[in-house]
Amino acid sequence: MKKKVGVVLSGCGVYDGSEIHESVICLLALDRAGVEAVCMAPDVDQMHVINHLTGEESAGEKRNVLQESARIARGNVKDISTVSAEDIDGLLIPGGFGAAKNLCDFAVKGENCDVHPEVARLVRDFATKQKPQAACCIAPAMVAKVFDGGSIHPTLTIGTDKEVGGKIDQMGSKHQECATTDFVIDKEHKIVSTPAYMSGQSISEVADGIEKTVRELVKML
Amino acid sequence: MKKKVGVVLSGCGVYDGSEIHESVICLLALDRAGVEAVCMAPDVDQMHVINHLTGEESAGEKRNVLQESARIARGNVKDISTVSAEDIDGLLIPGGFGAAKNLCDFAVKGENCDVHPEVARLVRDFATKQKPQAACCIAPAMVAKVFDGGSIHPTLTIGTDKEVGGKIDQMGSKHQECATTDFVIDKEHKIVSTPAYMSGQSISEVADGIEKTVRELVKML
Repeated sequence: MKKKVGVVLSGCGVYDGSEIHESVICLLALDRAGVEAVCMAPDVDQMHVINHLTGEESAGEKRNVLQESARIARGNVKDISTVSAEDIDGLLIPGGFGAAKNLCDFAVKGENCDVHPEVARLVRDFATKQKPQAACCIAPAMVAKVFDGGSIHPTLTIGTDKEVGGKIDQMGSKHQECATTDFVIDKEHKIVSTPAYMSGQSISEVADGIEKTVRELVKML
Repeated sequence: MKKKVGVVLSGCGVYDGSEIHESVICLLALDRAGVEAVCMAPDVDQMHVINHLTGEESAGEKRNVLQESARIARGNVKDISTVSAEDIDGLLIPGGFGAAKNLCDFAVKGENCDVHPEVARLVRDFATKQKPQAACCIAPAMVAKVFDGGSIHPTLTIGTDKEVGGKIDQMGSKHQECATTDFVIDKEHKIVSTPAYMSGQSISEVADGIEKTVRELVKML
C-alpha cells in the first residue's frame, strides 16, 4: 500500500490561489517518491479574483477555491471537510497568496488572522498525532497561526523576509532564516518548511527547496 | 546570453486551457537547462469554461486565454501576436484541451480545424527558418494542421490513440506511436513530440517524456 500525503490547495494562481509551480513540483516530487498525493481544498469562494496579466482585482468576479484547485488536481480533489487525519499519512501545503487569502486571511490581517476551521483542524490533528507535515512559501505563516496560543511552538521558515518572519514570532512560533534552495525541519513537531517563491528568483531554485522538503517529509511518513 | 524558448500557453487547466502539470514541467526543464522561457498566448476568449470539479461547462462564464495563461506564467506572458520567430530560438507547446480548443479547434472539427493565425504563423516560421520546436500531448495535432496542404510532412506522435493518430495522417503528417515516457524526433524538420497526458497515467511518466523532449529541443538550439 502506497503512503498518502494530503496536498492542501487554495485555488489556482499565485495572486489569488495556490502557486501553480509550487503545487506541481509538490505533486511530481511525491509521485517520484512513490507516494500518493490526495489533493484537497476548502469549498468556499476565493477572497477575490486577480487578473494575473495586470495584477488588478477583477471586480465582481467570483471563483470557488475547490473548483479552481481542481484545475491543478486534474479534477481529482476532495472537499477538505471530508478528510480526516486518520485517512492520510502526511500533509503538504504549497504556497501562493491563496494560502494567505483563502486558507486564512493573513494577507489582510497579519498575526490577527483567522484560519479556515477545517484547515486548522487538519494541521492541529497532524501535530497531535505526531504525523509529519510540510508547508511552502507563505503557508508556514498559516501554520504558525494554527498553533498560536497553544502549547506547540514550531520552528518554521518563510525565507528571509523580516516583517513576515517577525509576525511568525509574534504568533508564538520561531522563525528561522533559510535560503530558497534549502528547508527548515522541526524534528520534534515533524514540520518541514521551505521559502519557495517567498524569496525564489527562479523555478529551479524553488524546485530544489521543495524537492528537499518533500524528501524530508517522506522520510518521516 | 541565454537561449530563449517560447512556451505557447492556451489558458490554465486541462479541460479548457493548458495542461498545468505539462506546462510547469516544461518551464522547470527549460530553466534547469539554462534556457529562458518566454511565455506567450493568444489574446482571445477561451472556447468555453469547464468546471474542473464536475467536468461540466460553466455556462455563461467567459475567460480570456492570455489572462488565464498568466496564472501559469506568474504574470510574465506576452501576447503571441507581438512575438516574431526572430526573437526566440525554440518553440515549445504544452498540451491540454486548450491546445485543441483555443490554439485551434481540433477538439470540435478534427482534421477540418482552423489554427489561430498567430500560432500558425509562428509554427510555420520556425519550420521555414529551420529552428527547433516541440509539442506535447494533443498539441502535435495542431502542428499537423499548420502544415496540412504544404510541402512539409513532419513525423509526430500523440501516443497510441488510433483515432487522433489517424487524423494526423489525414492532415498530411506521419503519426508514429510512442510511449508516454519517450518522445519522437523529426530531425529533418527539427520537431520533437511526446504523448504526455494523451496516454500518461501519472505525473512522473509525463515528466519523464517531457524532460527528454526538452533535452532534445535544447540540443538543437
